[in-house]
Amino acid sequence: MNGKYIDEINVGDYEVFQKTVSESDVYLYAGITGDFNPVHVNDVTAKKSMFNGRIAHGMLTAGFISTVLGTLLPGPGTIYRDQTLSFKKPVYFGDTITAKVTVIKIIIEKNIIHCETVCFNQNDEVVVTGIAKVMPPKKMES
Amino acid sequence: MNGKYIDEINVGDYEVFQKTVSESDVYLYAGITGDFNPVHVNDVTAKKSMFNGRIAHGMLTAGFISTVLGTLLPGPGTIYRDQTLSFKKPVYFGDTITAKVTVIKIIIEKNIIHCETVCFNQNDEVVVTGIAKVMPPKKMES
Amino acid sequence: MNGKYIDEINVGDYEVFQKTVSESDVYLYAGITGDFNPVHVNDVTAKKSMFNGRIAHGMLTAGFISTVLGTLLPGPGTIYRDQTLSFKKPVYFGDTITAKVTVIKIIIEKNIIHCETVCFNQNDEVVVTGIAKVMPPKKMES
Amino acid sequence: MNGKYIDEINVGDYEVFQKTVSESDVYLYAGITGDFNPVHVNDVTAKKSMFNGRIAHGMLTAGFISTVLGTLLPGPGTIYRDQTLSFKKPVYFGDTITAKVTVIKIIIEKNIIHCETVCFNQNDEVVVTGIAKVMPPKKMES
Repeated sequence: MNGKYIDEINVGDYEVFQKTVSESDVYLYAGITGDFNPVHVNDVTAKKSMFNGRIAHGMLTAGFISTVLGTLLPGPGTIYRDQTLSFKKPVYFGDTITAKVTVIKIIIEKNIIHCETVCFNQNDEVVVTGIAKVMPPKKMES
Repeated sequence: MNGKYIDEINVGDYEVFQKTVSESDVYLYAGITGDFNPVHVNDVTAKKSMFNGRIAHGMLTAGFISTVLGTLLPGPGTIYRDQTLSFKKPVYFGDTITAKVTVIKIIIEKNIIHCETVCFNQNDEVVVTGIAKVMPPKKMES
Repeated sequence: MNGKYIDEINVGDYEVFQKTVSESDVYLYAGITGDFNPVHVNDVTAKKSMFNGRIAHGMLTAGFISTVLGTLLPGPGTIYRDQTLSFKKPVYFGDTITAKVTVIKIIIEKNIIHCETVCFNQNDEVVVTGIAKVMPPKKMES
Repeated sequence: MNGKYIDEINVGDYEVFQKTVSESDVYLYAGITGDFNPVHVNDVTAKKSMFNGRIAHGMLTAGFISTVLGTLLPGPGTIYRDQTLSFKKPVYFGDTITAKVTVIKIIIEKNIIHCETVCFNQNDEVVVTGIAKVMPPKKMES
C-alpha cells in the first residue's frame, strides 16, 4: 500500500491517469463544491458563452493530477505541498483527459520532488499545466 | 446572471463560501477523480498515518476557491487563468471550511485581476493558500 | 409494473415509505438542487441557528411522499397534479422518516384521487403534512 | 451569510435559479428518495408512456424553488412554512429550468411573506407553479 521512497525515484520518471469526463462527473463536482457557475450546469447560458457549451470545472481536471501523485507517483504516503495551475483550454463533456506527472527535480535532503504536471485531451491539446512539489513517503526508522 | 465587470471591482473586495466537508463529499470526489489514496478512503491505513485519520483531498478544498471566483467574485462569465496552491494543513471529515477570495491587484488594460485565495477551518487555521489570476466577464460591444 | 386503477382504490387505503435520512442524502440533495443554505451544509452556522444543528431540506423529506404515490399508491403510471405542503418540524441527520399517504377522496369521473400526505419522525412527530391530488393510471382501451 | 430581513423586502422583488436537469440529477434524486417510478429510471417503459421518455421527478424541479428561497430571497435564515405545487408539464433530461420566486404579499406583523413560485423550461413553458409562505430571518434583539 506504500508509494515510492525518494531513493526509488528518478528524474524523467512519469505516470499517467486517464478518464473521459462525463456530465455526471461535472454535476457531482458542482454538487460537492457548490460551484454552480452556469457555464458548467446551464446548457442554454453556456451555449451563448465563448465556450459554446457546458464545460468541466478547471479544478476538476486538475484533480486528476492529484490522482497520479497520490496513487501512482510517488503514490500512497505522499504529502502534497504545492501546485501551480494554468488553465489553457476548456474541457467539454465527453473529452478524454490524460493527466501526466513527470519528475523534473529531486531534492534528497529535503525529501521533496518537483514534477511537471500536464493534462491534455484526446486531441493532444494541453488543457491544464503546472508544477507540483510533493514529499514522497518516508522510510520508517528501524 | 452575469458576474462583475473589472470596473466594478476594487482592491480589497472579498467574498466567501463555507461548507462542512462530509465523508460523502470526499467519497464522491474520490469517485470522480479516481484518487483513492488510502489516506482519503481507508480508515485503517489513515489512522496509522501521520494524519491519524481520513482527510479530504487538498484539491477538493481548493475547489471551493473556484466556487467563489465563478459564482460570487467576479462571478459568472469569469475566465480562470492561473492558480497557485500551498497545502498547509489537513482537512478532516466534519471540518467547516471557509474559502475567502480577496482582490489584491487589478490590471485594467489586460482585464485581469489577482486575488489572494485562502481556505481556513473552524479554528481559523489556514489549510490552503495561494494566488488566483482571473479575467472578469467583458462587456458586450455595442 | 403498473399501479392501481381508480376502481381498485378505496377511501382509507394507505401506504408508507420509510428511510433514515443521512448526511450524504442531504449533501447529495444540496448538490442536485444547488440549495447550499448553511443550515443544511454548514455545521458551525447551523449550530448557532434556532435549529441547533444541520437539518434536511424540507423538500427532500417531501420527496418521500412522491415515492409512495409513484411506486406504491396508486403506483407507476400515476400523474402527479397538485401537492400542498406545510413544514412543521425540522428533520435532523439520522432521523427516520415515515411518509404515509392515505386516500381521502375519490372522483371517479375525473380519474382523480385526493390523499392526505404526512411525514413523521421516529418520535411520531409530524414534520411535513399536506394534500396530494393525483390521477391513477388509466386502463388501456380495448 | 444572512438573508434579507422583512423590512428589506418589497412586493415585486424576485430572484431566479437556473440549471439544466441531467440524467445524473434524476438518478441521484431517485437514489435519495427511493422514487424508482419507471417513468424516471426505466427508458423502455417511459418511452411507451404518455411522456414518451424518462422525465424528472416533479419534486426535484420543485426543489429549485427552495434553492431560491433559502439562498437568495429571503436567503439564509429563512423558515419555510408552506408551499403549494401544481405540476403542469413534464421536465425531460436536458431541459434547462428556471425557478423564479416573486414576492406578492408581505405581512410585517407575522414576519411572513407570500411568494409566487414558478418553474419554466427553456421554451418558457411553465412546468411547476405554486405559492410559498416563508418567514425571513429575524433581527437579533440587542
